[in-house]
Amino acid sequence: MEVIKGISRMREFVREQQMAGKRIGLIPTMGYLHAGHLSLVREALSTCQVAVMSIFVNPLQFGAGEDLDAYPRDLTRDCELAEKAGVAAIFAPAVAEMYPGGGYFSYVDVENITEGLCGGARPGHFRGVTTVVTKLFNIVQPEVAVFGQKDAQQAAVIQRMVRDLNMPLQIVVAPIVREADGLALSSRNVYLNPNEREAALVLSRSLKMVQEMVANGERNAGVLRKTIENQINKEPLARIDYIEIVGSEDLKPVEILKGQVLIALAVYIGKTRLIDNQIVEG
Amino acid sequence: MEVIKGISRMREFVREQQMAGKRIGLIPTMGYLHAGHLSLVREALSTCQVAVMSIFVNPLQFGAGEDLDAYPRDLTRDCELAEKAGVAAIFAPAVAEMYPGGGYFSYVDVENITEGLCGGARPGHFRGVTTVVTKLFNIVQPEVAVFGQKDAQQAAVIQRMVRDLNMPLQIVVAPIVREADGLALSSRNVYLNPNEREAALVLSRSLKMVQEMVANGERNAGVLRKTIENQINKEPLARIDYIEIVGSEDLKPVEILKGQVLIALAVYIGKTRLIDNQIVEG
Repeated sequence: MEVIKGISRMREFVREQQMAGKRIGLIPTMGYLHAGHLSLVREALSTCQVAVMSIFVNPLQFGAGEDLDAYPRDLTRDCELAEKAGVAAIFAPAVAEMYPGGGYFSYVDVENITEGLCGGARPGHFRGVTTVVTKLFNIVQPEVAVFGQKDAQQAAVIQRMVRDLNMPLQIVVAPIVREADGLALSSRNVYLNPNEREAALVLSRSLKMVQEMVANGERNAGVLRKTIENQINKEPLARIDYIEIVGSEDLKPVEILKGQVLIALAVYIGKTRLIDNQIVEG
Repeated sequence: MEVIKGISRMREFVREQQMAGKRIGLIPTMGYLHAGHLSLVREALSTCQVAVMSIFVNPLQFGAGEDLDAYPRDLTRDCELAEKAGVAAIFAPAVAEMYPGGGYFSYVDVENITEGLCGGARPGHFRGVTTVVTKLFNIVQPEVAVFGQKDAQQAAVIQRMVRDLNMPLQIVVAPIVREADGLALSSRNVYLNPNEREAALVLSRSLKMVQEMVANGERNAGVLRKTIENQINKEPLARIDYIEIVGSEDLKPVEILKGQVLIALAVYIGKTRLIDNQIVEG
C-alpha cells in the first residue's frame, strides 16, 4: 500500500491504474478508522479493483468552536488497518496541499437540503464537505465513491451534488455499522467516558423503539418524535440537538409517514455531539 | 460532425474517443458563432485530436431584465460554421436536459475575483457561468478547454476555479479577435444599428489610446482611466458601465501599473452592453 501526500503523485497513481484498465473506488474519510470505514472499503472492492482511501481532516467543514484541533488522528494505525482491508493507496495530504497559500476562493454549495438537520446546527459545514469532496473527486477521478449512511444528510447532499453537477462517478451509500449494543460507530466515540458511553445508547435505543412503532403501523411523525424526545430527556447526560423526521431524499419534514422516511438524531452526550439515524418505510 | 442533444449520448461519444486514445478539447459557447469562437476551435485542435463545442444559452448566468430571451440563436448556421472549422461534435442540450425538473440545488461559487467588473454589474452572473462550466467539464471530461480573452474576468474566474477545485484539465485562453476597424467580435454586436456600430468603436479606440500611453511610460491608473472616460463621454450613444484597471489574475484595482495589468471596459451602446479589454505590462 502506498501512502501519498502530494496531489501530483496521486494523479500519477490514478493515471497508472487507468492505463492498466483498473476501476478506482474512493473512500473519503477523516481518518481514525473504525469498522464502519472498513466496511466502506469492502463495498468499494466489491465493484472496483483498486480502493483509494483519503484521510483528511478538512478544516473547511468545521465551524468556530467545533472540534477541529481535538479531532482524533492516528495515521500510523489508520495505515495498518487500511492495508489489511485491501486499500491500494492512502491519500493523506497536508492542509497546505489542499488549500495552498495565495487565497482560496472556490466553493461548491448545495442549497435547500443542507438547510435543516446538521446543516442548521452547523452553518457552513456542508459547504466545506461538498467543496473538499469535489476536490477529492477531481484529484482521484474514481468510478465509485463510497459514503456511510451514518452521515445520512451528507450522503443525500453528495448524491444531489453529483446529480446536479453531472459528476462522472457513482455514489454508493453503505449501511451503518454498530457496536454489539447498538451504538453507531463514530471516530468521536473516543471522546466518551464510561458513563457517557452508556448514556450514548439512548440514540440507537430510541431509534429502534420508533422503528418498531412504524412496523406496528404508527404513521404520525409527531408521535414518533415525542417518543424519541421522552427517551432522550430521561437520560441526564443527553441533550437533544435535533430530532428530524424527513423525506429520505428531499430531507423535507413529514407529518404523516409515506414512502422512504429518514429519522435522524443529533444528541450531545456530555460535550460530544453524536448522530444516528434510521430509514423507515411509511 | 455529430450534433448531440442528450447528456448520455455525449458521455458515450466521450468514452469512444477516450477508448481510441484521443484527447478532447472543449469549446464552451452560447452559439451564434463568429470568427472569435472559430479561433478557439483552432486553438483546441492545436493540442487535441477532437474538438467538442458546446452551444448552450445558460439561463443561470442571465439576470432579471437581461437579454436571455433576445439572445441571438441560429443552430443551423452554427453547425455549418463549426463543421467547417473541424469540430467533431456539437453538444447542444435543451435547458431541461441541463436543469431537469425536481429542483436544482447545486452551484459552484468563486468568491473575491467575481466581486468587481462584470460581477459587480451582473450579480449572480459568474455563479451561473462557473456552475454550467463545471457541468460541461463533468459531461465532456476534456483534457483542454478553451475560452476567449474577450471575457477576461470569466477567463480569470474559470482558471481560478480549476486551480482551487483541482479540476483535471488545462484551461487555454485565446486572444481577442477583432473586426478590421477594431471592434471586438461578440454575438451581441448583432444588436447594433449602423450608428451604434460606429459608436461602438469607442471601446477599442480608447483601449488602444491608453495602451500607447503605457508603452510611452504612463503608469498612473487614474490618468489612464480618466483618458478612457473622456473618450467615451465624447460619444453620445455610449454610457459607461465600468472602467477598471486591475491585476490580471487577482482582479484587484491598481493605482500604479506594475506587472500584468488588465484594463477592462463595459459600455452600453444604446441598449447593448459591450465589453472589451487589453492586458498591458506595467
